[in-house]
Amino acid sequence: MSSHHIVRDDQEPALIIANGAACNPELLGQLLEWSPLVIVLDSAMERVVELGIKVDVLLGDFDHGFDPEIYKTSQYPIEIVHTPDQDKTDLEKAFDYLIARKIPAVNVVWATGKRADHTITNLTNIVRYRNLIKIVILDDHSKIFLLPNKFEKWYTAKTPISLIPIGVVNGINSTNLLYPLKDDTLTIGYRTGSSNSVLQDGLVSITHNEGDLLLMECMD
Amino acid sequence: MSSHHIVRDDQEPALIIANGAACNPELLGQLLEWSPLVIVLDSAMERVVELGIKVDVLLGDFDHGFDPEIYKTSQYPIEIVHTPDQDKTDLEKAFDYLIARKIPAVNVVWATGKRADHTITNLTNIVRYRNLIKIVILDDHSKIFLLPNKFEKWYTAKTPISLIPIGVVNGINSTNLLYPLKDDTLTIGYRTGSSNSVLQDGLVSITHNEGDLLLMECMD
Repeated sequence: MSSHHIVRDDQEPALIIANGAACNPELLGQLLEWSPLVIVLDSAMERVVELGIKVDVLLGDFDHGFDPEIYKTSQYPIEIVHTPDQDKTDLEKAFDYLIARKIPAVNVVWATGKRADHTITNLTNIVRYRNLIKIVILDDHSKIFLLPNKFEKWYTAKTPISLIPIGVVNGINSTNLLYPLKDDTLTIGYRTGSSNSVLQDGLVSITHNEGDLLLMECMD
Repeated sequence: MSSHHIVRDDQEPALIIANGAACNPELLGQLLEWSPLVIVLDSAMERVVELGIKVDVLLGDFDHGFDPEIYKTSQYPIEIVHTPDQDKTDLEKAFDYLIARKIPAVNVVWATGKRADHTITNLTNIVRYRNLIKIVILDDHSKIFLLPNKFEKWYTAKTPISLIPIGVVNGINSTNLLYPLKDDTLTIGYRTGSSNSVLQDGLVSITHNEGDLLLMECMD
């Protein structure tokens, strides 16, 4: 899909293809159009290669009998990064890799679906990368990112907006949401801001004082 | 799949079919074999009826142009429960319904997949039903439930076990896990116990002092 014969600007968001459920090829195609640096996690490589995608970096602990070396010729040039650390997920190691390369932003696909433990870990662990790298997780139904303390974005009316606290989030205020928040506290498991939506075409602002708040733009 | 011509014992776990991604028909068939009370959430009904399943209760706010009345004849007898409360999800309303009927346990399918906001809300909101109803969420890759403060179960060696804290969980101890926990603290987003596994055939014990800890048995 991506010929990669152009000079890449490392200021563009990289693309991580993780090891969960595959997304719609159209979504993947849109993200590849910008010729991002493409990082594939571990044995997801087998599924990615079938799609004819040129991969720049293959990263993983490769501990399930998967041999990354076989891609050295067919995917030349490719960087193979062996990351045996058992205290981190492959996705976290890929974020660390990008931070070391000073790449400021990344889109992540195939990070949801399949195993629920991987899905919830991938979605919630992005909070620890605040101020280190801008992360957006995408799947066929969802676009997910961590909110800065002051967030403002233009949305069309009725866009579904879910606010998911990772832990406890205090001092939340919003404008232009159907269910407004006013110095509110959200607590995962007990009180979340799921299934809110935009009131009218225009700027939505969401601010919070402390805690980690994810915004999810989701569609059925 | 379920003829429902037998007398049902309300002490058996009920079955809620939520509105996320459909599971493997084989998993659904296994759960239906016990002739549970079957509750379907809102417009998932259209997909459930196509599978030839007899539904006992259809529950939802029915606010997206979906008419539940059309099932009154084809699914007779069926109870239709209209729940317009916008402060709760349909899944929470179904738990409330079962608690009111004094049904002690429930299996939930189709609660994951599709929208990430629904998935994370469904998985994490079960913590508020501690001591009210025993909930197990199942999909093709995962079996998820809330741990009591003292938990013990027999597992075969190498069974994957993930411990996911919903918030902060203190004073966690384990025996017979590959990565043992010893008076440990887990915090969602920062330190989770994902991708642990059983050391050897036998009892696994996991205890914790405070907080909400989910156990996920997941397979690729």
